[in-house]
Amino acid sequence: MSELIIQKIAQAARLVKASDLDAWIVFVRETGEAADPVLAFLVEGELTWQSAFIFSKKGRREAIVGSFDADALREAGGWDVVTGYVQSIRPALLEAIERLVPVSAGPNPRLGVNFSTSDVKADGLSHGMYLLLESYLHGTRFERSLVSAEAVAGRLRGIKQPSEISCMRSAIAHTQEIFVELTECMTLGVTERELRDIAHAKIRAAGLGFAWSSVANPIVNFGPNSMIGHGTASETICLERGHIVHLDMGVRFHDYSSDLQRCWYMPNAGEQCAPNDVSRAFAAVTGAITAGSHALVPGARGCDVDAAARSYLVAAGCDEYDHAFGHQVGRVAHDGGSILGPAWERYGDTPFTPIQAGQIYTLELGVFVPGRGYLGLEEMALVDEAGIVWLSSRQLDLPVLKA
Amino acid sequence: MSELIIQKIAQAARLVKASDLDAWIVFVRETGEAADPVLAFLVEGELTWQSAFIFSKKGRREAIVGSFDADALREAGGWDVVTGYVQSIRPALLEAIERLVPVSAGPNPRLGVNFSTSDVKADGLSHGMYLLLESYLHGTRFERSLVSAEAVAGRLRGIKQPSEISCMRSAIAHTQEIFVELTECMTLGVTERELRDIAHAKIRAAGLGFAWSSVANPIVNFGPNSMIGHGTASETICLERGHIVHLDMGVRFHDYSSDLQRCWYMPNAGEQCAPNDVSRAFAAVTGAITAGSHALVPGARGCDVDAAARSYLVAAGCDEYDHAFGHQVGRVAHDGGSILGPAWERYGDTPFTPIQAGQIYTLELGVFVPGRGYLGLEEMALVDEAGIVWLSSRQLDLPVLKA
Repeated sequence: MSELIIQKIAQAARLVKASDLDAWIVFVRETGEAADPVLAFLVEGELTWQSAFIFSKKGRREAIVGSFDADALREAGGWDVVTGYVQSIRPALLEAIERLVPVSAGPNPRLGVNFSTSDVKADGLSHGMYLLLESYLHGTRFERSLVSAEAVAGRLRGIKQPSEISCMRSAIAHTQEIFVELTECMTLGVTERELRDIAHAKIRAAGLGFAWSSVANPIVNFGPNSMIGHGTASETICLERGHIVHLDMGVRFHDYSSDLQRCWYMPNAGEQCAPNDVSRAFAAVTGAITAGSHALVPGARGCDVDAAARSYLVAAGCDEYDHAFGHQVGRVAHDGGSILGPAWERYGDTPFTPIQAGQIYTLELGVFVPGRGYLGLEEMALVDEAGIVWLSSRQLDLPVLKA
Repeated sequence: MSELIIQKIAQAARLVKASDLDAWIVFVRETGEAADPVLAFLVEGELTWQSAFIFSKKGRREAIVGSFDADALREAGGWDVVTGYVQSIRPALLEAIERLVPVSAGPNPRLGVNFSTSDVKADGLSHGMYLLLESYLHGTRFERSLVSAEAVAGRLRGIKQPSEISCMRSAIAHTQEIFVELTECMTLGVTERELRDIAHAKIRAAGLGFAWSSVANPIVNFGPNSMIGHGTASETICLERGHIVHLDMGVRFHDYSSDLQRCWYMPNAGEQCAPNDVSRAFAAVTGAITAGSHALVPGARGCDVDAAARSYLVAAGCDEYDHAFGHQVGRVAHDGGSILGPAWERYGDTPFTPIQAGQIYTLELGVFVPGRGYLGLEEMALVDEAGIVWLSSRQLDLPVLKA
């Protein structure tokens, strides 16, 4: 991992040079439980005391940390200077900011810090820490300098390095293998909870982590009475004839995640293939994902990609889905930044930020088939210079299970 | 765990009734990577969309969450009402606040939210989320109502329920067992890294988690050239004659943590016991911990507890330690809230908040013995109505290893 951290620190330095910030300050403390999401790209392990990581317009990278953390950070590498302190970070922090953002930089210096009303992954600065930093800067020429660094933080997270993409390819491949193995266990009478627990055992046996809480990972839905969405697998709902089986699962491989959905169909007696209502829904879902994928190009807005998928689905006679068509994936399944979503208030600005090459998105949607269950699929793709590269092997056929 | 969550929700309702707040609002989103530290007491698993948990002065507890999360939360129990939403949390949130904080409550309603410049565990509201909540309240009678809820959040975390104490007793017992087992592995020539890796294997084999990042857990220090503090165990420093061995280790049992330090001595040829400089340091350290423990009573201030230990140590002819004498432990090793620390700026207000019965603290300090290494000990104790109950079996003798 430390190799990757050194790459990400260098990427951050390049991003700040190319930004409209005079400096980017990642300001954190006690990162054991609730760390700034940016921190994992800069530091391995945890920091106890108030710590600041400063990237200057000229490409300098300096760290100021509690004296106990300084040696480990120097050893890890990637920083031009690591300064340790004992009683208060204030003197070293103000000295570094004064030096790295000289008066010659101009009259209204811009110090980017990690807050954003829209992008949770660029919003790692707590309100208390914001107030603290403001109090440190009080009376200096930086009194009104704090601005949002969401563009830099979003690019650092979103634009993947080759080693990050490689980890994600492995996470996806493992997930798809487990889907195949689970097919054997989709037998009449098995409960949702039992199938979830079998999936847990396979994930753990493969040495993988969970891309989100294992309580709802995988999400398991059998038939029309299942709890659709983020619910937990039921102990009482069993797989019956005529059910659609739907799984939403993500694993973590070397700290990078997958997030995929797959479907199966358990036939009624005498059925050789899925009935018309189910296969029409399947075709509408795969068609809508394809339609959305064609709109997913660098520079496009996520709301337009969502609209391409959404309008295809509606034209196919299905109900609209009540979520975004896609989100970025990286260290976590919901990796923040721009999304492929409609212009709903809860998404803030994130559907309007232009899509960038190097980002990895899910493409996901589903429809409820009355009496059958939820038919949802989720794929993953990397945006490149011209369009996308599929990272998952797309599901284009609906397997019919053996009863 | 859900039993504990229901207990903690009820405790939170009692704390708000007894507080100076008209309501407490825990406002979160995308809690997978960087959650409000309070959330783990209220919800099992993760929440995707903006979610609000409101405790009113009259004891009502209401949750407003994304529609996908609503069913699971209703099933978990503990809430009077769970409201799901699709496009924006704003209407349901404003309706609930208007209803739960009626005009009759008075002209300057106080809505507590989770920010604190001092207590990281009461500072879970990001700056972006603060701005968002402010924008939702703009134009209502709650425009200037947001205040810090740090007293409520601090008590909810700090004052342990019996089942929390029981988990911590188990975490401590496991840690002490592993210390005993590791003693067998402290042989001449073993490296710090090797001993750390043996500890990792024992922690995992016992089905335990790590109370902090395993990179520096345990901290392993052999002799005078080791990296003292929060550094990683060295691959090149081996255990030699005349070395003090120092470990700082914490495990997690059912989501609750331990944090303990122990020491050993590797004798020079012909030595039957530790030399005078080492045994004097050991006596000073244990004596200072005892002195501090006598000052640890409900209502005392942490800075006075620290001073009792610190002045004992200085009177014994040792250098002051450059950290706090103790911190709270709970779900995590550094569990926030009041600490037993000196009045240094980096500790903010936390050394001045009165100590409360039901809190669990570490009592820790150490001295560097030139040519020998770091002699540091850390114990854990529960504050009760009259003083403390030791949770760890105190180290009162320095074991001499077999060469």
